[in-house]
Amino acid sequence: MSAAKPRQDVRDVEVLAFDIFGTVVDWHGSIVRDLATLHPQVDGDAFALAWREGYRPALARVMSGELGWTLIDDLHRMILDQILPRFGLEGLDEEGRRHLNRVWHRLDPWADAVEGLLRLKRKYILCSLSNGNLGLLTRMAKRAGLPWDCVLSAEVFRAYKPDPATYLGVARVFDLPPQRVMLVAAHHDDLAGARACGLHTAYVERPLEFGAARLKDVSPQAANDLHSRSLLDLADQLDC
Amino acid sequence: MSAAKPRQDVRDVEVLAFDIFGTVVDWHGSIVRDLATLHPQVDGDAFALAWREGYRPALARVMSGELGWTLIDDLHRMILDQILPRFGLEGLDEEGRRHLNRVWHRLDPWADAVEGLLRLKRKYILCSLSNGNLGLLTRMAKRAGLPWDCVLSAEVFRAYKPDPATYLGVARVFDLPPQRVMLVAAHHDDLAGARACGLHTAYVERPLEFGAARLKDVSPQAANDLHSRSLLDLADQLDC
Repeated sequence: MSAAKPRQDVRDVEVLAFDIFGTVVDWHGSIVRDLATLHPQVDGDAFALAWREGYRPALARVMSGELGWTLIDDLHRMILDQILPRFGLEGLDEEGRRHLNRVWHRLDPWADAVEGLLRLKRKYILCSLSNGNLGLLTRMAKRAGLPWDCVLSAEVFRAYKPDPATYLGVARVFDLPPQRVMLVAAHHDDLAGARACGLHTAYVERPLEFGAARLKDVSPQAANDLHSRSLLDLADQLDC
Repeated sequence: MSAAKPRQDVRDVEVLAFDIFGTVVDWHGSIVRDLATLHPQVDGDAFALAWREGYRPALARVMSGELGWTLIDDLHRMILDQILPRFGLEGLDEEGRRHLNRVWHRLDPWADAVEGLLRLKRKYILCSLSNGNLGLLTRMAKRAGLPWDCVLSAEVFRAYKPDPATYLGVARVFDLPPQRVMLVAAHHDDLAGARACGLHTAYVERPLEFGAARLKDVSPQAANDLHSRSLLDLADQLDC
C-alpha cells in the first residue's frame, strides 16, 4: 500500500461512501444524552463505552460463522442485555430495552455533518456504507436530516466491513471501477480496508468520538488521499 | 382477498413503498423524448413500447432460473440489442448503445410526483420498491429530485416483484408487520402481490403510461385500500 497515489486521481471520483458511527454521527454523545433522560443514575459515559466495546467482538462472531447473519439492531440488543446488570439496570422491562436499543436510530449528527453533506451532494453521489442495518440507517437519516442519495449497508452485501464485499459492493452497485468511489471515515482501519480494494480514501478527524474525557488520536496517515478536519473541510478540499 | 378491510387500518402505516416505472416516472414519454434527440428518424412511441414489451419475459427468464441473477440494467441492454435492428439501428456502436440504455436512469417524474412525495415524506418513511437496480434508481432519483428516505430494489432481495420476498422484505427491513407498509403503484397486479403478503395498497391512476395513443384503463379495483388520481391526491387522502 503506497501513499504515492497522485492527488488528481481524486477528480475521477463519482461516489462518496460514508462510514456512519463516529464519522457522521456522534454515538457516544447521543447515548450519554439519552441515558441522562432515561436513566439519570447511570454513568452515561461508561455505559456508552461498554456498549460500543461489545460491537467488534459481536461482528467477529458473525463473520467467523459462529453466529448466523445477524443485523446490528440485534447485535446491539445482545450486547445491551449483557451490560445492563453491570449498570444496575437488570430490571429494565422489554419495552424499556427496546426503546433504549433504538437510541442507535436516534444518534445526532456532528455539527458540521448535514451542511457538509448538502454541499458534497451537489457534486457527488452520496451513500452510507455502514455496518448498521438499513432500517436503522434510514430512521437515523430521516430524524437527523442526512441527505443520502442511497442508503447502503452491510445488510445489502451480507458482510460486515472490513470484508472486501462491502467496499467492492458499492462500486458494483454504481457500475464503477473501485477508484471512482471514495470512502470517507474517521477510522484508519476502515480506510485501509477500502484502499486495499482500490477505493480512494478520506479521513475525517473526530477527536471527541469517545467523549471529551478520552480524546482520540486523529493524526494523519499518509496512505489516505485526503485528511480533513470536518465534512465542511472535506467539501472545501473537493471544491464543493 | 376481500375489500372489507376497514379504512382506519391505513392509519397504522409507517412506510410507503413505491413502484417506480410508470408510477413515479414516465418511462414512455422519457424514451420518446430521448429518441427524438438521439435518433429522430425512429418512431419513439413504437420503440418505447417494444423495449418495455421485452421486460416481463426477461424477468420471467430470471425468476424461472433460466438466467442467473441479472440486474435490470443488463436485462434492458439485452432487450435493446434485440430490438435495434427492427428500428434500423443495428449499426449503433457500443458507446451509443450504452448511452441509450442509460435512458432508464434519466426518466422524468410525472408532474405531480416530486411535490406529492415531498408532502408524503413529512409523515411517512418513503422508499422505492422497484425491479430497477440500486444504481439506476439512485441516479434517477438524484436527477429527478425524488426524495427517498431509502432506495430499495429487487437487487436487495435478489428477487423480482411479484415475488413475496420483495414485499415482505420491505417490512423486514423496517422491522414492521406487513400491514404497517403500504405499496403505492399504478399496476393492479403489483398491488395484488403486495396485498397477498399483508401489505396495504394504494393505486395511482397513470392513464398516459403507454402514451397518449394508447390510454390505459385506470378503473378502481375495490380490493385496494386507496385509489388516487395522483400523488398529490394520495397526499390529500392521507392528510399530508
